[in-house]
Amino acid sequence: MKEVFAEVITIGDEILYGQIVDTNSQWISAELDKIGIRTARQTSVGDSRQAIFSALQAAEALAQVIIITGGLGPTKDDITKHTLAEYFGSELVFDPTVLENIERLFKPRGREVTETNRQQAYVLAGCKVLQNSIGTAPGMWLERNGKVFISLPGVPHEMKKLMSEQVLPALQTHFQTPHVIHYFIKTINIPESTLSDLIQQWELALPAHLKLAYLPRPGQVRLRLTGIGADKEALQAEMNQQVEQLLSIIGKYVYGYGEEEIETKVGALLLQQGKTIAVAESCTGGYIAHQFTQHAGASRYFLGGIVAYSNQVKIAQLGVSAETLAQYGAVSEPVARQMAENVRLRYEASIGISTTGIAGPDGGTPEKPVGTVWIAYADGNQTIAKKLTLTQERMLNIMLTTNALLDLVRQQLCS
Amino acid sequence: MKEVFAEVITIGDEILYGQIVDTNSQWISAELDKIGIRTARQTSVGDSRQAIFSALQAAEALAQVIIITGGLGPTKDDITKHTLAEYFGSELVFDPTVLENIERLFKPRGREVTETNRQQAYVLAGCKVLQNSIGTAPGMWLERNGKVFISLPGVPHEMKKLMSEQVLPALQTHFQTPHVIHYFIKTINIPESTLSDLIQQWELALPAHLKLAYLPRPGQVRLRLTGIGADKEALQAEMNQQVEQLLSIIGKYVYGYGEEEIETKVGALLLQQGKTIAVAESCTGGYIAHQFTQHAGASRYFLGGIVAYSNQVKIAQLGVSAETLAQYGAVSEPVARQMAENVRLRYEASIGISTTGIAGPDGGTPEKPVGTVWIAYADGNQTIAKKLTLTQERMLNIMLTTNALLDLVRQQLCS
Repeated sequence: MKEVFAEVITIGDEILYGQIVDTNSQWISAELDKIGIRTARQTSVGDSRQAIFSALQAAEALAQVIIITGGLGPTKDDITKHTLAEYFGSELVFDPTVLENIERLFKPRGREVTETNRQQAYVLAGCKVLQNSIGTAPGMWLERNGKVFISLPGVPHEMKKLMSEQVLPALQTHFQTPHVIHYFIKTINIPESTLSDLIQQWELALPAHLKLAYLPRPGQVRLRLTGIGADKEALQAEMNQQVEQLLSIIGKYVYGYGEEEIETKVGALLLQQGKTIAVAESCTGGYIAHQFTQHAGASRYFLGGIVAYSNQVKIAQLGVSAETLAQYGAVSEPVARQMAENVRLRYEASIGISTTGIAGPDGGTPEKPVGTVWIAYADGNQTIAKKLTLTQERMLNIMLTTNALLDLVRQQLCS
Repeated sequence: MKEVFAEVITIGDEILYGQIVDTNSQWISAELDKIGIRTARQTSVGDSRQAIFSALQAAEALAQVIIITGGLGPTKDDITKHTLAEYFGSELVFDPTVLENIERLFKPRGREVTETNRQQAYVLAGCKVLQNSIGTAPGMWLERNGKVFISLPGVPHEMKKLMSEQVLPALQTHFQTPHVIHYFIKTINIPESTLSDLIQQWELALPAHLKLAYLPRPGQVRLRLTGIGADKEALQAEMNQQVEQLLSIIGKYVYGYGEEEIETKVGALLLQQGKTIAVAESCTGGYIAHQFTQHAGASRYFLGGIVAYSNQVKIAQLGVSAETLAQYGAVSEPVARQMAENVRLRYEASIGISTTGIAGPDGGTPEKPVGTVWIAYADGNQTIAKKLTLTQERMLNIMLTTNALLDLVRQQLCS
């Protein structure tokens, strides 16, 4: 089995000015890695003919797969397409199917196809057009001397869709890449270093063709076990066995596998058990509701929520007692309990959950410093409240609170 | 004045596997830009002698400043250092001041200096050592044929400290760099292609030392105007004049400048006018509340919100009439109006806003396809409702709805 190498070229002055972090390179490299293609280099260049041309030359000398993103939007600084044409000694030709795609996109929105849009329908002669179902710039697949060049729009969600649906499957077929299997084991509420200590023995005993990676996010660590092999079924069986061993060590911290997120896991458990949920948010300010509702089908178990940012709203909309607020303050166990219990009753939900805390960076006191958070869970039989002591970072605190509360719900639903 | 160009080389297998996002490149480029040094290319290569050597060759051919940040940890730094020595035809010599620095770091922590640490005290003969006050790996400054090579540790906080305190001041002195000014003009609710067509004449007439870039996000396009010149004040005056011209064309789509976001702009207008806001969300499911509350100080104008995902909640928590829901459906103008008016009254806010729509990907009908959304604004004097016709993508629809509604609020507050 021959190794296949790739170069990822991202184009954009905004990257070189340091105005945006280029996340496309990382995402593309990670996806290529999953199908057994190794990224040999990542290069970012500006919106300039010469820079793009040189990058293409260097890439062709190094790699078999060259993926280029950016510089395909409908504006003046988009010279990628012209430079590609020059590089291939080719020309740009009008492709009516691209224009049809743009028209199809614009029609329901009542938008008119402009001359600039029409220019986007010009593609390199001889390329395979990768139709973009959610944007106006198409992707292009070109081959020369056994090397594959793929040009994609720089807008991340468009690039990802084209990669996942068209480019990655085509690369697998084209290069007959080895079998690569990834298992994602998703843990929650355990620090990376603790996790690493717990599974050290198991990890050290892994054979060379199985590799473990730690992918941390706020409040979660995803473990990725990657196996490479010629025999797919043997590899699968071997990995199942290893994952079983792993689960015997850290099972209680594992909430899910693969693409599952903690909120969809909670959603699936609620659906299974015929239950519904409502949320009363203070410090998370709508973020938990958004976690649920970003996924299609959330309406089957998520009834809604109340964002109670002021005490007034906590009293009027959630029926939190004014005395309790005065006596204990908004960030307190009794207030968290009342919020969870009352949102459950008011929304007629099976479960009510709540958050109240000091997200920061201001608003801390010596007794209740920034990062002090109370969360609560109520299901009619019992109410559980928990105090969290988090960080100085506002957005991080919002995310950590969300993870802690969703995991509390998961544990209750699993118990 | 001669422009000075840089290349940033980041080294690490973990970058090429896509396991981490390389944020060092972005940070370094942004800092270089502030002192008038333009990054011509960013390159990431693996922990391999050959890859590093080739990257150095390519960088020396392109740029006057080459900044290299190493892999993490003493073993990986080693490859970079030996490759640099080979590249310069130089050798590694023991520097007692580096070892003293390591000993000084370890002493209070009771840590012993290992053989690996001792190796870190070897630096390139003839380099200027950049002492690392918070880590064990020193930086190095090397010059050859008028070009400057700077090698730094990969640990972000060590790299940043060395850059800020030693490298950037030294580069300013060394190259006597020009002035660079960036203006960000932030537009909303106008497609990139329409914007581009509107300002085409103005853009084409820009002098060569002023450059425009389009930075699109869902529902917004940020414009960046960059100027380079020897006389800072003349450049500033020229750019002010150009921006004034630009605003005379697209002023009504511009909500802010610089780092301002649409939700903080709305927040600032509310604060100025002593007003408060509350939000009733169906299809955006908490996302608008989260947009406000992710920023510190939101409690001064944002009272809270209701996420009303089910009809039951729309009736019970928002007082939407059951008859209206039955007659027009949840996704309708009358329901959007009642939601905005009622959340305003219930939260005792100056302004109430609402969203109701079919975010997708399921739930569409021939009359109300996926992407059909109603938004509304109510301030006691008037209620405005607007229909949006959006896309098939759930998360994109949530973001587009949020932008459209926040812009509606902005327009009302500005009128």
